[in-house]
Amino acid sequence: MNADQYFKEHRQAHLNQLIDWLRIPSISALSQHKPDMRKAAEWLATELKRIGMTKACVMETGGHPAVYAERIDHPGKPVALIYGHYDVQPVDPLNLWETPPFEPAIRDEKLYARGASDDKGQVFMHVKVIEAILKLEAKLPFNVKFLVEGEEEVGSANLERFLNEQKDLLKADVVVISDTGLYARGIPSLTYALRGLAALEIEVTGAKSDLHSGLYGGAAPNAVHALVRLLDSLRRPDGGVAVLGFYDGVQELTAEEKASFASLGFDEEKLKKDLAVNALPGEPGFSAVERLWARPTLEINGIFGGFQGEGTKTVIPNKAGAKITCRLVPNQDPKHVADAIEGHLKANLPPGVTLKVSKGDGARACITPIDHPAIRAAMQALAEAYGAEAKFIRGGGSIPVVGTFTEVLGAPSVLMGFGLEDENFHAPNEHFNLENFDKGMRALCSYWFKLAQVM
Amino acid sequence: MNADQYFKEHRQAHLNQLIDWLRIPSISALSQHKPDMRKAAEWLATELKRIGMTKACVMETGGHPAVYAERIDHPGKPVALIYGHYDVQPVDPLNLWETPPFEPAIRDEKLYARGASDDKGQVFMHVKVIEAILKLEAKLPFNVKFLVEGEEEVGSANLERFLNEQKDLLKADVVVISDTGLYARGIPSLTYALRGLAALEIEVTGAKSDLHSGLYGGAAPNAVHALVRLLDSLRRPDGGVAVLGFYDGVQELTAEEKASFASLGFDEEKLKKDLAVNALPGEPGFSAVERLWARPTLEINGIFGGFQGEGTKTVIPNKAGAKITCRLVPNQDPKHVADAIEGHLKANLPPGVTLKVSKGDGARACITPIDHPAIRAAMQALAEAYGAEAKFIRGGGSIPVVGTFTEVLGAPSVLMGFGLEDENFHAPNEHFNLENFDKGMRALCSYWFKLAQVM
Repeated sequence: MNADQYFKEHRQAHLNQLIDWLRIPSISALSQHKPDMRKAAEWLATELKRIGMTKACVMETGGHPAVYAERIDHPGKPVALIYGHYDVQPVDPLNLWETPPFEPAIRDEKLYARGASDDKGQVFMHVKVIEAILKLEAKLPFNVKFLVEGEEEVGSANLERFLNEQKDLLKADVVVISDTGLYARGIPSLTYALRGLAALEIEVTGAKSDLHSGLYGGAAPNAVHALVRLLDSLRRPDGGVAVLGFYDGVQELTAEEKASFASLGFDEEKLKKDLAVNALPGEPGFSAVERLWARPTLEINGIFGGFQGEGTKTVIPNKAGAKITCRLVPNQDPKHVADAIEGHLKANLPPGVTLKVSKGDGARACITPIDHPAIRAAMQALAEAYGAEAKFIRGGGSIPVVGTFTEVLGAPSVLMGFGLEDENFHAPNEHFNLENFDKGMRALCSYWFKLAQVM
Repeated sequence: MNADQYFKEHRQAHLNQLIDWLRIPSISALSQHKPDMRKAAEWLATELKRIGMTKACVMETGGHPAVYAERIDHPGKPVALIYGHYDVQPVDPLNLWETPPFEPAIRDEKLYARGASDDKGQVFMHVKVIEAILKLEAKLPFNVKFLVEGEEEVGSANLERFLNEQKDLLKADVVVISDTGLYARGIPSLTYALRGLAALEIEVTGAKSDLHSGLYGGAAPNAVHALVRLLDSLRRPDGGVAVLGFYDGVQELTAEEKASFASLGFDEEKLKKDLAVNALPGEPGFSAVERLWARPTLEINGIFGGFQGEGTKTVIPNKAGAKITCRLVPNQDPKHVADAIEGHLKANLPPGVTLKVSKGDGARACITPIDHPAIRAAMQALAEAYGAEAKFIRGGGSIPVVGTFTEVLGAPSVLMGFGLEDENFHAPNEHFNLENFDKGMRALCSYWFKLAQVM
């Protein structure tokens, strides 16, 4: 019996088992679910032990526990760490769920439940794939460790310390994460890069207090005017960022990456319609998808100053501030970017005001080169399972744990996720398309064999 | 006996009488003082009747009552309307008063009490001047009417309607108002112009909702960026206003006005120190005092958009707004200015966003030409009373009632006020320098005789 037949035969049993796990309301954000968290962790540890993983256990982290397991069938050979999370988002507003979030239901080949897609469903696929291989082959082609945490939805506050403390136990050569999505339905795709972040807050101060515009208007600095001048100077009229040094180090897209993005047929008109805007402004010389995934941005996230109440107040504001974050791409240094922006602001400060800049913690962009063996193997596995060419995609946001794994374990990440954008993760009626449950398991299964050939 | 002697002889009696009036807590903003409002109005009407004014009465306005009186000793000749207010500001925080606000006390030749300077004290001076002339001369050199309202500190909501209803009764050829201040201690000065106002609110909208900067950053319009671009474009880098048509009609200062302002020795260094700023930015080519009094301004009074809480939120704001007011100078049309700004904003709208502009009620600037007989007479009266050259000054703010008098009665205003900037009107420890009580009454007394010669 091959794996495909095995998955078909066991499909209903697998789904029933996943449904059992999904019934446990493992909401990490709500303290009344603390017992459920442990129950969900123990369920998983027991299951990992049952299928043949060794050292399967629930480990304390200081917060909600994590689940660990390993199976080293090839001592001395490379190891993959499968990362995922068993905690789920809260379920409010409950009345918008068509079926209760913790009473899983299948409709139209979709499994509805909180955690179905994010991320219990995808973790479960890994477990069943390992089980299948062990049943069919008695041993794994590649050494595997599992780390499934219980605090992803609340910021993974204890993960970095835990990784550092358990560095030896968790040592791995590649991290495989199934917690992202496909580019679109039916398109096998692999996220090989994520953007990083730089953050600043700025505050401009003029006179020692707000002033009456009748008494002082014409001879007193207006903090809001100074602020808008400063902020406007950060972006060029053409949409690019005007800060000297901002683009330092930016890794340009290769021809292969550009071609792969272009082949996706990203629909800019549809995006305009979805956002209800008549233009998609941004840095010139790049397509929208290139700008979203592979170009750094500078966004004012918030601005405040002066009178915001109803009506008119003839005041010259003495204080105004803004929050700025930048999405960064590979090889940009968050500290260098924040320093460059600070330098630009200081150099362009209008007369009569002072400036305070606070720089937040940044995060480097993450990338696993598309020619990395772990990536190439994943692309092949995806293409075979879906019967279609696999696409390279990136994420425009950041997944902090990916950076943490890179930093602490020094291992590249492979983001092989099977969710779809419209599956309502974090919202009512979260669901998981069973097409991707089936094809995803086939892809993951062949992945371990392909990986063993190249790593 | 001449007037000077008279005022000296009756000084203590006058002060005692003023103190009686100041004891009545006529706070228009607080409903529990409604009986005190009427009491203060009746006190004044009784006094006006007693000194020999005719038709002295308390009149209903729909809000707090007004006090009216007149004495027409020269039928068919011009009439002056003396305007003032008997209501006072609230007194919080009470604990900061050295002596209670309604227990008047004289210290260092200053009368401390709520209303001492703003405006009961100055209204009372007019009453005592008229009384003195009637006692000494039996009749007035100039026809006089009094209108003393009780709602100035709460926005004079009923005044415009009242003026329109009582247009015939209040008909006058000049309005004399003592509710402003001298340029500085010992400098007799007359406010002959006030700035007007234009007001706008603007709101910029990008996408249909706030967006995640990771998912959309680089291809979605940011409403705050669009707003800061728009707002910055309103002012030229040199400090002038960049809006086409903004300066249309602006009345330039004459050589005499410029010279008079320059002779004041306005201390820009002191202003910088007072405001704690290192520059006084503004339109180039004009001194600070010229900019404050005789040049129009455009100020952003408030700005808002996106995330204003603590920490970082990686959002692309879809809405941002600002409040703008302009101080206008004589011959600018508030509607034209607001339209010009709206036109500028629409012409400069960045791609991907829409704009909503709301234009508020404006107010024209007020000016009584410095060669108007009523102004020249006042300057002479002030110079004689103070023994120093009188100075032309302007107010950078607006006093709405002045515009209302111009509009409804068609009469020019003479703002002969005797307050000083540091007398804490609207604050604890309001006081009135008795030097200006004495000299002011002498100036007002001779004013009526001089006015009779020129009008």
